[in-house]
Amino acid sequence: MEPFTSVVDLRSGTISPERDVVERRLSDMRGMYDEDPEDGDDRLVYRVFGIPVPATNGNVLSSTTVLEPGTVGREYFMTKGHFHEVRDRAEVYFSLHGAGRLLMASEEGDVRVEPMAPGTVNYVPGGWAHRSVNVGESPLVFYAAYVGDAGHDYGTIERRGFPVLVLAGPRGPEIIENPRYAG
Amino acid sequence: MEPFTSVVDLRSGTISPERDVVERRLSDMRGMYDEDPEDGDDRLVYRVFGIPVPATNGNVLSSTTVLEPGTVGREYFMTKGHFHEVRDRAEVYFSLHGAGRLLMASEEGDVRVEPMAPGTVNYVPGGWAHRSVNVGESPLVFYAAYVGDAGHDYGTIERRGFPVLVLAGPRGPEIIENPRYAG
Repeated sequence: MEPFTSVVDLRSGTISPERDVVERRLSDMRGMYDEDPEDGDDRLVYRVFGIPVPATNGNVLSSTTVLEPGTVGREYFMTKGHFHEVRDRAEVYFSLHGAGRLLMASEEGDVRVEPMAPGTVNYVPGGWAHRSVNVGESPLVFYAAYVGDAGHDYGTIERRGFPVLVLAGPRGPEIIENPRYAG
Repeated sequence: MEPFTSVVDLRSGTISPERDVVERRLSDMRGMYDEDPEDGDDRLVYRVFGIPVPATNGNVLSSTTVLEPGTVGREYFMTKGHFHEVRDRAEVYFSLHGAGRLLMASEEGDVRVEPMAPGTVNYVPGGWAHRSVNVGESPLVFYAAYVGDAGHDYGTIERRGFPVLVLAGPRGPEIIENPRYAG
C-alpha cells in the first residue's frame, strides 16, 4: 500500500480530499432519543469524515466526527454509539474543538463518563461501547483511530439503549439513568 | 481494562498526566546524522510523550512527539526512524504544530516524502519505515497512533541509514540522496 496524506481543517473538522463521509440526521436515529423529535424535525446531528484503508488487523482506521450542538427535548445531540464487532478492539478519541462527554458502557451495564475538550485523548478499551455527546454550543470535533478490523456493532445499542442519558439542566449537563435501558 | 483520559497541551504537545516520556539528545543518535555534531554538542532533539497501554493486537498505542528545531551541519533535526517489528502494522500521524517532512522508506529502498503541517494526517502503511524531520523554526508537534503489537525495529535504520537526507538550503528544505545509505 502507498503512503498518503489527508488534511483536517482544525476549525471545522472536515477532511480533504473528501474520501468517505457519513451524515446522520434525526431521521437516521429514530428511537434513540428519550423523546421523539417533533414531526418534520430532521436536523443534521453529525458527520463522520473517514480516512478509509482496508479493514485489516494491521491497519489503523481513522476519521473526524463533527457533532452539531443541539437537543431533542432536554437530551443533547449525540452519536448513535456502538460496540466493536471484535470486542477486544480499542479506540482513541482526540478532541479538537468544543465540549463533550464520552459515554462508555460495558456489556454488563457498567458505565463510565469522560470529558471531551480540545486536547483530551480518551482511551476506549476493548469491550466498551462508546457514544459521544455534545454538551456545548458549538460543534464538537474529534479525531478517532482504531484497529482496522474492529468492525461496528450498532444493533446492541439500538436494542438496549445506553444505561445513561445526558440532559441539559439549569446548571449544565446532567447524567441520569436511562429509564428505558434494556441491558 | 478501564477507560481513561489524558490531556495534550495543543501548543507544547506535552501530555498530562505524564505517563511515559522518552527523551532523545544528539548523544542518543550517534552516527545517524551525515555530519557528527561538534564535541560537547548534546542538544535535545525530541521527546515522545506516550499513552501506554498493553502492547496487544487489540489496543491502540499513541503518543505525541515534540521535535525541536535545529540542524546538525545543514541536516535538519529528525527522529531516529524505525520499521515496525511486525512489518504489516500501520501508523497514523496527526500534526498539531510546526512544519515537517515525513520520510518513509520500504525495505527495498523506495522512498516517499510527505508534508507535515497543522492538520495533516499522514498514513504510514505497513512495511514503510518512518522518520519525521523538523524543517521549521519552532517545534514540530504531532500525535501518532498505531496497532498495539507493532513493536519497534530501530536496528535496520541504524545499520542502513535512510535513503534520503533533508538539508536546509538557501530556498528551503532540500531532499538529497544519502551517500552513505547501505540498503
